[in-house]
Amino acid sequence: MTNHGWILERRPVEKLDSDCFAWREVALPAVGPGSVRMKTLMLSLDPTNRIWASPVESYLPPVPLGEVMRGIAVGVVEESADPRWKAGDLVQGMLGWQERVVVPGAALNGLPPGVTPEQWFAVFGHIGLTAYFGLLDVGKAEAGETLVVSAAAGAVGSLVGQIGKNIGMHVVGIAGGAEKCRWITEDLGFDAAIDYKSEDVAKRLRELCPAGIDVDFENVGGEIMDACLGRLALRGRVVLCGMISQYNATGAPSGPKNLANVLMQRGRIEGFIVLDYLPRAGEAFGKLGEWLAAGKLQYATDVVLGLEHAPAALDRLFSGANRGKLMVKVADLP
Amino acid sequence: MTNHGWILERRPVEKLDSDCFAWREVALPAVGPGSVRMKTLMLSLDPTNRIWASPVESYLPPVPLGEVMRGIAVGVVEESADPRWKAGDLVQGMLGWQERVVVPGAALNGLPPGVTPEQWFAVFGHIGLTAYFGLLDVGKAEAGETLVVSAAAGAVGSLVGQIGKNIGMHVVGIAGGAEKCRWITEDLGFDAAIDYKSEDVAKRLRELCPAGIDVDFENVGGEIMDACLGRLALRGRVVLCGMISQYNATGAPSGPKNLANVLMQRGRIEGFIVLDYLPRAGEAFGKLGEWLAAGKLQYATDVVLGLEHAPAALDRLFSGANRGKLMVKVADLP
Repeated sequence: MTNHGWILERRPVEKLDSDCFAWREVALPAVGPGSVRMKTLMLSLDPTNRIWASPVESYLPPVPLGEVMRGIAVGVVEESADPRWKAGDLVQGMLGWQERVVVPGAALNGLPPGVTPEQWFAVFGHIGLTAYFGLLDVGKAEAGETLVVSAAAGAVGSLVGQIGKNIGMHVVGIAGGAEKCRWITEDLGFDAAIDYKSEDVAKRLRELCPAGIDVDFENVGGEIMDACLGRLALRGRVVLCGMISQYNATGAPSGPKNLANVLMQRGRIEGFIVLDYLPRAGEAFGKLGEWLAAGKLQYATDVVLGLEHAPAALDRLFSGANRGKLMVKVADLP
Repeated sequence: MTNHGWILERRPVEKLDSDCFAWREVALPAVGPGSVRMKTLMLSLDPTNRIWASPVESYLPPVPLGEVMRGIAVGVVEESADPRWKAGDLVQGMLGWQERVVVPGAALNGLPPGVTPEQWFAVFGHIGLTAYFGLLDVGKAEAGETLVVSAAAGAVGSLVGQIGKNIGMHVVGIAGGAEKCRWITEDLGFDAAIDYKSEDVAKRLRELCPAGIDVDFENVGGEIMDACLGRLALRGRVVLCGMISQYNATGAPSGPKNLANVLMQRGRIEGFIVLDYLPRAGEAFGKLGEWLAAGKLQYATDVVLGLEHAPAALDRLFSGANRGKLMVKVADLP
């Protein structure tokens, strides 16, 4: 049984792309006591992959050069020496960018019954937890408040806006291009959209948020965040979830100029990392499942076929090509 | 009885200085029912005066052109038609940059017995409340944590650092010049000082805060704040109290480049305005008075003699000339 995977060979200077990786055969150890051999079915691609490949210590250590790229994936158990799992079980965990892997059974979690790998990544998993806890726990979002979400047609943003609508907020999404803006308003039910590629974001925020922004769910950073800071309402909260506009930057990023408004408005900017919320995952899954079953959460998937395309596909997140949850189909469901 | 005051004649382009003001006779209405005529004794000068003179709506409306400059002052009641006050009472309130004023008695507060105008401005009043609630309520400061305070030899900063020591924190102050650094460490008991005029702030923060910064009490903004953001500890808090480095800026300010670290560290940047804490003033005054009586709060005053010098004196806050609480003595205590 051979196994292949993507090895991180070089640190990205700007983009994390094919130049940084090498497709190699990866040794597969025997399945010892407590461990499990998994076949990868679906690999999640996320903006944070760019952070993991950087040499900088962040919320996780950098992926070491010469090792398989870190990645969250859904797989099927092929062989198990852990009583928790048996062949055929669908599980998810940090399986890496490879066809197969042997991991401790304790490092895996099962998928809820009836949930497909696509649904898992698009609605539950790290994306769902990020949207749910970011908006409700960090952002302390309340019915009647105004929510602005950037990268609104992305995996997290599209959920955040819908959760906002489900709890009774006025929701404005910022996205790139007419089709994404149409999708979030017509299909997902956002109250309004701002096309940052063709519109003046600050001007449109003034029009669409006459009483200011109560919660800015920030996925982008840079100029878009700055425009939101300038429009923050009294006691407005900025959920600092991601800063995708900055991840590929080679020089020092330009910081927000409107920080003085955070002071004047008694605003709050708060960073968060979804890993901190894993112990409370059950809370979110229950509510997300309820909304999904009631037709109150739509999702889109952006599925790339074949693990060989993973390095090239990652750029879809940074170029604006992606809509909904980006993932790579590695193998068919058994 | 004549009355003179400083009229705001022009909006500041850069500095708020003598060019912006005119010394004029100001009409003094008769003392009607419920009102009081005050003689100004001591005027507080604060960085926020620069904000009030700007045309921008902030936490208070701009001072209208052609009106007496807004200012917090201590005065003595000369004539009262409000049963709460009698001639000879020492009171404080928004009396403005003028020799006398007639105001509603309801707009005044008495000074605690035995507290001088200097002590009132240096330890209690808006300065004491800012330091106390900013550090403890917004910053959620705890014993054993590391506190960094900028403008540490200023009125607020010097109190913040001492309150930090009084509750058992490790305290690092950032100030300009050897004498200020000596004062905050040797006289006020800070653990360490960084002279931003002669030292590399980011490098010194790495040395002096090996486990990172738990609370950054930020009075300065700009590059100094940026250095602190880059050194924030896990779940570190930035109390955004002031951004004096930005107030005189003519172009757009340069924003902090280290915002990504706020995300990684699950940090929080929170703006606050002391006015929100007026209802809880008693809490702070009790504790501040206790520390003062026990010799655990030192203070310095920077007293300029004569209301005619108020516009020129304001620049002491921005040029770094000031140490401790800046105020203008308008008249002798009766």
